[in-house]
Amino acid sequence: MSEILKNESFAATAPIEVRQLIRQGKFKRPTAGVSAGFAQGNLVVLPQKYAYDFLLFAQRNPKPCPILEVSDVGSREFRLTTKGSDIARDIPLYRIYKNGEYVDELESVQDYWSDDLVSFLLGCSFSFEAPLMDADIEVRHIAENRNVPMYITNIETTPAGIFSGPLVVSMRPIPYDQVVKAVTITNQLPEVHGAPVHIGDPSIIGIHNIDQPDFGDAVTIKPGEVPVFWACGVTPQAAVMRSKPDFVITHAPGHMFITDVKNSHLSS
Amino acid sequence: MSEILKNESFAATAPIEVRQLIRQGKFKRPTAGVSAGFAQGNLVVLPQKYAYDFLLFAQRNPKPCPILEVSDVGSREFRLTTKGSDIARDIPLYRIYKNGEYVDELESVQDYWSDDLVSFLLGCSFSFEAPLMDADIEVRHIAENRNVPMYITNIETTPAGIFSGPLVVSMRPIPYDQVVKAVTITNQLPEVHGAPVHIGDPSIIGIHNIDQPDFGDAVTIKPGEVPVFWACGVTPQAAVMRSKPDFVITHAPGHMFITDVKNSHLSS
Repeated sequence: MSEILKNESFAATAPIEVRQLIRQGKFKRPTAGVSAGFAQGNLVVLPQKYAYDFLLFAQRNPKPCPILEVSDVGSREFRLTTKGSDIARDIPLYRIYKNGEYVDELESVQDYWSDDLVSFLLGCSFSFEAPLMDADIEVRHIAENRNVPMYITNIETTPAGIFSGPLVVSMRPIPYDQVVKAVTITNQLPEVHGAPVHIGDPSIIGIHNIDQPDFGDAVTIKPGEVPVFWACGVTPQAAVMRSKPDFVITHAPGHMFITDVKNSHLSS
Repeated sequence: MSEILKNESFAATAPIEVRQLIRQGKFKRPTAGVSAGFAQGNLVVLPQKYAYDFLLFAQRNPKPCPILEVSDVGSREFRLTTKGSDIARDIPLYRIYKNGEYVDELESVQDYWSDDLVSFLLGCSFSFEAPLMDADIEVRHIAENRNVPMYITNIETTPAGIFSGPLVVSMRPIPYDQVVKAVTITNQLPEVHGAPVHIGDPSIIGIHNIDQPDFGDAVTIKPGEVPVFWACGVTPQAAVMRSKPDFVITHAPGHMFITDVKNSHLSS
């Protein structure tokens, strides 16, 4: 990746252009802040035999798993939200899980593709970061140019078929006097995780070291700030690790699929 | 049904008591206005082989098909929303479809039950009628003690697998000066169809005679009132008629499953 691309924010770049850069191997980092205003999504790709159980798991756990689109069987395109997309190449970094174990991280999953795969696109908290910033709430991991910190909690999801697992959350430190605003803004965006699941003391939800996230990077929590936790689209990956389907492709945490749908159109 | 039961509104009766009366054959009419404040649901029961396609159809068409719960395979209980319920007996009137044709209407479907059936409970516009009435908006079909009028439109749903079909809507006449209030109130309840899909001239959405609904009863539209149309949970029945799965059980239009969940808890 050239130095120019490293330093660009891509906030104003159209999704289709960013996806092209990703396909060309020119964009290889987390996608927070990229194509501001457009919905980004978590990816889960499974063989068809698991698709019903996973769709039901998502239906029963809409806060961590808000479904934006489900592909047709075998299709590599999210044709409803992102015409012309290539699910196997349009994400900067993928993960492969076999029997619940993370076995590989790579920039394209073309070689792993087969005709019985079904792809799920799940809403992502990055979609509510632009509205937070519009309301003058600093999003720390963007300000510090890191991946968002994510934690496995002691809250159980509602199981469905073979899938069960703990709720995973993302965290943003918010000044006391902006907490209510952060809640009300995100509450209006149920398609991208909605209102927080927890505010304050991390130990209440089973997080014992806020400086050691299970996924992503730690961020600074300044004096006068409260850690605020939102349901996270990495939750399905925790369910995959516990439920051990024989084969799964996901995005790497923080490296999202960028859709052509504006966040403001998600609920219409 | 005794004269007493006929004249009671059951607005203040607990859902479990109404379900008991239904099981005992003592309550045999549409459920609008019953157990006010509690969510009612549309029922669709299908063999497991169709469950994935139907769940995806619902996911792609959340306005007419907002899922409240999906049963486990073979279970007759909606255990998450309504513990102790009996899906085969707790609705006043059921319909049986074979190969897309409506073949029977009956008060219990116990004799039709089998272990490979999956039950879908979909949000119902009756859930937003109490909030409308709380805001002093008259709900005409309740005032006139009729079933809500429902119409097949010229709007197509988004197909999924074998399922496709036209959007079905329910209609309530609203005075001009209350239309905006009716929109904003229902917009806050996406789990039960949300905001209207159309306001005014019925012909725009393919309804050519407002006095002849396709399901339910016609209601009076007074001078100074506008017909307002909401997506309706009978939409899956229209999809069943077109898509012709070999066997389906549904509720009869207007005769709903009454859950133990308050409308105010649906989005939490």
